[in-house]
Amino acid sequence: MAQHKKRLNFAMIGSGFMGRAHSNALRQAGCFFDIPYELKLKVLCARNLEAVENFAAQWGWEEAQTEWQSVVARKDIDVVDICTPNHMHAPIAIAAAQAGKMVLCEKPLAMNFAEAVGMAEAARNVPNGVWFNYRRVPAIAFAKQLVDRGKVGQPYHYRATYLQSWGADPAVANAWRFRQAEAGSGALGDLLSHSLDLALLLNGPIAEISSLQRTFVPNREVDDAVLLLARFASGSVGTFEATRFATGCLNRNYFEIHGSRGALRFNLEDMNRLEVFDCNDAAEIQGSHNVLVTGADHPYTSHFWPPGHIIGYEHTFIATLVDFLESLAKGDSFHPNFADAAEVQKLLDAVESSARSKSWTSVAAFAEGSTVKS
Amino acid sequence: MAQHKKRLNFAMIGSGFMGRAHSNALRQAGCFFDIPYELKLKVLCARNLEAVENFAAQWGWEEAQTEWQSVVARKDIDVVDICTPNHMHAPIAIAAAQAGKMVLCEKPLAMNFAEAVGMAEAARNVPNGVWFNYRRVPAIAFAKQLVDRGKVGQPYHYRATYLQSWGADPAVANAWRFRQAEAGSGALGDLLSHSLDLALLLNGPIAEISSLQRTFVPNREVDDAVLLLARFASGSVGTFEATRFATGCLNRNYFEIHGSRGALRFNLEDMNRLEVFDCNDAAEIQGSHNVLVTGADHPYTSHFWPPGHIIGYEHTFIATLVDFLESLAKGDSFHPNFADAAEVQKLLDAVESSARSKSWTSVAAFAEGSTVKS
Amino acid sequence: MAQHKKRLNFAMIGSGFMGRAHSNALRQAGCFFDIPYELKLKVLCARNLEAVENFAAQWGWEEAQTEWQSVVARKDIDVVDICTPNHMHAPIAIAAAQAGKMVLCEKPLAMNFAEAVGMAEAARNVPNGVWFNYRRVPAIAFAKQLVDRGKVGQPYHYRATYLQSWGADPAVANAWRFRQAEAGSGALGDLLSHSLDLALLLNGPIAEISSLQRTFVPNREVDDAVLLLARFASGSVGTFEATRFATGCLNRNYFEIHGSRGALRFNLEDMNRLEVFDCNDAAEIQGSHNVLVTGADHPYTSHFWPPGHIIGYEHTFIATLVDFLESLAKGDSFHPNFADAAEVQKLLDAVESSARSKSWTSVAAFAEGSTVKS
Amino acid sequence: MAQHKKRLNFAMIGSGFMGRAHSNALRQAGCFFDIPYELKLKVLCARNLEAVENFAAQWGWEEAQTEWQSVVARKDIDVVDICTPNHMHAPIAIAAAQAGKMVLCEKPLAMNFAEAVGMAEAARNVPNGVWFNYRRVPAIAFAKQLVDRGKVGQPYHYRATYLQSWGADPAVANAWRFRQAEAGSGALGDLLSHSLDLALLLNGPIAEISSLQRTFVPNREVDDAVLLLARFASGSVGTFEATRFATGCLNRNYFEIHGSRGALRFNLEDMNRLEVFDCNDAAEIQGSHNVLVTGADHPYTSHFWPPGHIIGYEHTFIATLVDFLESLAKGDSFHPNFADAAEVQKLLDAVESSARSKSWTSVAAFAEGSTVKS
Repeated sequence: MAQHKKRLNFAMIGSGFMGRAHSNALRQAGCFFDIPYELKLKVLCARNLEAVENFAAQWGWEEAQTEWQSVVARKDIDVVDICTPNHMHAPIAIAAAQAGKMVLCEKPLAMNFAEAVGMAEAARNVPNGVWFNYRRVPAIAFAKQLVDRGKVGQPYHYRATYLQSWGADPAVANAWRFRQAEAGSGALGDLLSHSLDLALLLNGPIAEISSLQRTFVPNREVDDAVLLLARFASGSVGTFEATRFATGCLNRNYFEIHGSRGALRFNLEDMNRLEVFDCNDAAEIQGSHNVLVTGADHPYTSHFWPPGHIIGYEHTFIATLVDFLESLAKGDSFHPNFADAAEVQKLLDAVESSARSKSWTSVAAFAEGSTVKS
Repeated sequence: MAQHKKRLNFAMIGSGFMGRAHSNALRQAGCFFDIPYELKLKVLCARNLEAVENFAAQWGWEEAQTEWQSVVARKDIDVVDICTPNHMHAPIAIAAAQAGKMVLCEKPLAMNFAEAVGMAEAARNVPNGVWFNYRRVPAIAFAKQLVDRGKVGQPYHYRATYLQSWGADPAVANAWRFRQAEAGSGALGDLLSHSLDLALLLNGPIAEISSLQRTFVPNREVDDAVLLLARFASGSVGTFEATRFATGCLNRNYFEIHGSRGALRFNLEDMNRLEVFDCNDAAEIQGSHNVLVTGADHPYTSHFWPPGHIIGYEHTFIATLVDFLESLAKGDSFHPNFADAAEVQKLLDAVESSARSKSWTSVAAFAEGSTVKS
Repeated sequence: MAQHKKRLNFAMIGSGFMGRAHSNALRQAGCFFDIPYELKLKVLCARNLEAVENFAAQWGWEEAQTEWQSVVARKDIDVVDICTPNHMHAPIAIAAAQAGKMVLCEKPLAMNFAEAVGMAEAARNVPNGVWFNYRRVPAIAFAKQLVDRGKVGQPYHYRATYLQSWGADPAVANAWRFRQAEAGSGALGDLLSHSLDLALLLNGPIAEISSLQRTFVPNREVDDAVLLLARFASGSVGTFEATRFATGCLNRNYFEIHGSRGALRFNLEDMNRLEVFDCNDAAEIQGSHNVLVTGADHPYTSHFWPPGHIIGYEHTFIATLVDFLESLAKGDSFHPNFADAAEVQKLLDAVESSARSKSWTSVAAFAEGSTVKS
Repeated sequence: MAQHKKRLNFAMIGSGFMGRAHSNALRQAGCFFDIPYELKLKVLCARNLEAVENFAAQWGWEEAQTEWQSVVARKDIDVVDICTPNHMHAPIAIAAAQAGKMVLCEKPLAMNFAEAVGMAEAARNVPNGVWFNYRRVPAIAFAKQLVDRGKVGQPYHYRATYLQSWGADPAVANAWRFRQAEAGSGALGDLLSHSLDLALLLNGPIAEISSLQRTFVPNREVDDAVLLLARFASGSVGTFEATRFATGCLNRNYFEIHGSRGALRFNLEDMNRLEVFDCNDAAEIQGSHNVLVTGADHPYTSHFWPPGHIIGYEHTFIATLVDFLESLAKGDSFHPNFADAAEVQKLLDAVESSARSKSWTSVAAFAEGSTVKS
């Protein structure tokens, strides 16, 4: 029975779009899954008191606060969950970790690789995780299983695009995501970080990159688009594009892998589907299987709804949280954690460096000596 | 603030798949929408005590009970929500209505039209509603707006299929949905009822039908599949198919409308999309618009996530509940209510009658004198 | 070498859209395939001399004539190919057959079943064939192979739509296809005949039907749309729709079959593809295979272009002609021949009868005594 | 009438896959279009006498020869059409041009840019053209019209992939396309050349590139895959991938353009369709229009079949030939001609140079002084 479970008190710093997604996950995880803890939405903290009070009332947080420093130090808090603008990730995460709290942080983890390394060091003794939520899209978790079981074989090509179009909308031009000091970067940290995290998960380490960044709006401080070529350690080659100027595309987080045994194709806008090409099929009926990943044999989905009843964006946060809690109960490291996210941050820095220098950049050489021990 | 809202105490009878969907809606409505009431998950009631206690703990119901008769009579209950097998809808709904409770009921409303009429009569003085949740799929609610604004024009064709495949699975053969005494019918009440409710919403009254029913499994008590031709009052013509034997299809609740000004196409498996053909487009670029119905201009969606971040099955229940509550606050009738669902039930009976008699059946003649005043 | 092949002299009666498709096939068959005859485009015959001369010049016919009676009697003609409006099929075909010519005829074969029976009788001693060209779409011929090899298993459902939209265009309202005396019917003979021919091929005989016909344009002589329910002899059930009022659809000749072992889905607008669902796939990767039917293992396609290089509408006529010639060389009956097409015509008559009488119609009873011996 | 048209005698050198496509175009152009010449398939020339005789018989060439040198010098030849392996393009084209013949040549035009420049110089006084046939896919020609009419607006992104998978098939490993001395390159010249030709057509000049080439098969002489980033002169940015190792893809020649006013998407495997996103659509129905480019308002298509009746691969050659003949009759330059194709060749060389040097390469600097005057 739920009443005998250990309680975990959460404090969440930030109350924007991600604050809603995290609050929802905290409320729903125990409904869909038999989780090993009782979760308490204890303290919500953000800068504007009225806004934070309204948000707290709406999503069921017990308290509303405005000073994160005191919140992360409270004795009654077990987990600090950070969904502020990017520049605040490091100070909050480090303070929380130093106060002995478990820490969950939104992506991109940091403003740059060095900062990420510092965060990972600070958090090495507390359970920690990063909300690269797309790893827990059932279709992507299933893709990972297929890769691990050899269904793709030797990889040849990896191709990822993350296409949005709102960057051209003048109405959003003043959001924090367009300010260098708060966001650190534009499409790079916001979108490409997701694509790189998935590429590392599905296709392994990236050895070398050549990139370009492009800002279409005059005087905008951050990149509107970033493109790169990549050589993976495995010998496969890839292209990546992340942009806020892909007219016609709302949230097309897409990847495709071609290997010696099969191929996979995914688009977040149709996130309940995975296209699977299997070289073992008889030649005459070879063609991508259009798999609706909602079945009993697929990761997570049996906890949600029956086959064919699709899930949405928010469920990826629920599944991420559940996995974090299960790792915690078992004493295992959760992935992606701060160290994993620092690897993504290393790539982001390498991309910026390559774009600036207009040259191929070796990821290893770039970050020599500063890789986090995970 | 939430604390000043009137509280509504809910009792839910039933704890299966639909019980989960309803519980979720009750928990989430106030997070995503600014609803006019505070909702309390007061009493859950189902037959097996241990199961109901576990369910109550998981979804946050305050009490677990096993006798619906006493639950629906309790003074502290405002709304009775029914998600039992079909044969129990009428006795519970009538008792609840007679006790002055508001009543929400799963579909199909009743075992037959006469029973539905009785329920609608019993509930005429209490707010009531039926969980034909697909009306609140944003893409379908948007389709309704387009129809109402003349974007389809004079309707020519309506085509609906509700295709599932689990009926062939021996593992499910003993579920209540296959027992005549509890389900009343098979694909007819379970699937076709949804398609007919949407057809009435989107394309208006049906005048006449010719149908067939088919049971593929020997000795199965209910229909595995039902097919019909329909003449709508508007002069348009339609086909309907609902089946549990559509190999390869999990939940393909599909419709297509062709009219003098445009056309619409929808598939529940891709429920965040609506295909819209607009005869006003320049001839050279005429083609179905593939609309991702997640935008600021679409119904419901701005309450969930940003454009391009899709929702899932469960959100249709949230939106249904929110609309019920808003109607309640305004003193308006909610639709679909018992009277609306009785119209669907009339069609279901007409379909069975037509299939049995192998003849065209006039819906009006069939039900003469017994239509519910809504 | 080509020069040692027996020459076949063709006469074609008619010079419209189908005349172009047939002429093209006659010119191209020997290029793509190693056919057993040398084909000669000897005489083209149509009513308007100038038009027929221009057409002959453009497509390489040796002579242009305007009197079909003398053409079909000529000693130097081996094959008479008929692509006139429907009401002329019978007199020409019967005269040609009586003159000992091989006869190819466009579909629908006749104005009604009785006429078709007469044509089949007249042609029983000459090689004959009907241009139900869609049987030779590679994807459909492949579908037939899959059905024959048990890949669909026991059939449950057959669903066909033939959706066009040009019927609403006032510019075409005076075409012969809208005149009863020349066309015989509208969507019925023009479109449904194709769907029924394919259904008989892929799903076997139809036992019983219930249908409706609808003419949306006041005073139009023929049906704009026809819809039916069908019980197949196999126990499977089906729906058919053929219409010229499906706004948004240009040539959506679509079918879907669900059976105990798999499912198939086809759309003529994407005619190089077949969706194949295979119940033998591992559960986790079950999903329709999107097969581009252009491979070495597929019917016809290796004669055209390499895998992935698609073919178009006209190739179906080439493949039909090639199969006719190969049957001829072997002394086999070609299918579909007049007797096969008479079976389709029987169904068309049954559909009209059912629509008129508003009752289920037994196909066998309907046509008792008049089935052609094939 | 055809008999009064000027006759053009063609000689074709080469008799492989492309030889079939060209022969077909020569036979069919005058059927579908009212072309200003009478075309004569005079001489076919290839190395193997028996093969060339069989081919000539099958496709209707009057003579079969094996010595191209004498063929290109013949007085009775007006046009020399070259579809040999790549290394023979230059010697044949130059000899033919010097003999005063019109010259048509397969792509890639040459083994390298210098050779292409030489060919363009040699052919500057004779009508000439290159078979970049995909420019005449109706959907692509239509895309060009939309771009020219401002429907895309300021371009932001261009994305092209040409994905095939046959490179991994051991059965083909000895084809000339894998030998450096005959093919010059692998995916680069065979596939990327098409993508670059289309990019120049649709998105204008490319200023700078960074690329990589990859050969997956040990000891293979040519590239299996080539990837690049591109900066266009317009300020838009692009990615390109051409590969013979894209498992699951047969002929996925794909491009996508995003601009300030709209977006376009095309896939050769569905070559009768163009997806068109139009920012002028009302916000609520914004979504890619799925346009079946077979209508009266689309380029070329009214010459083939009625709307909705699709064409195939070969029609692109027919349309290319027709445009060449019409330019000829008017005395205009045909495009793409040798000079245009030399621009593509310049890019191919730049790509190889960039891949070798692992650095961004300025296309202009790379080719300084050697651009062909067109």
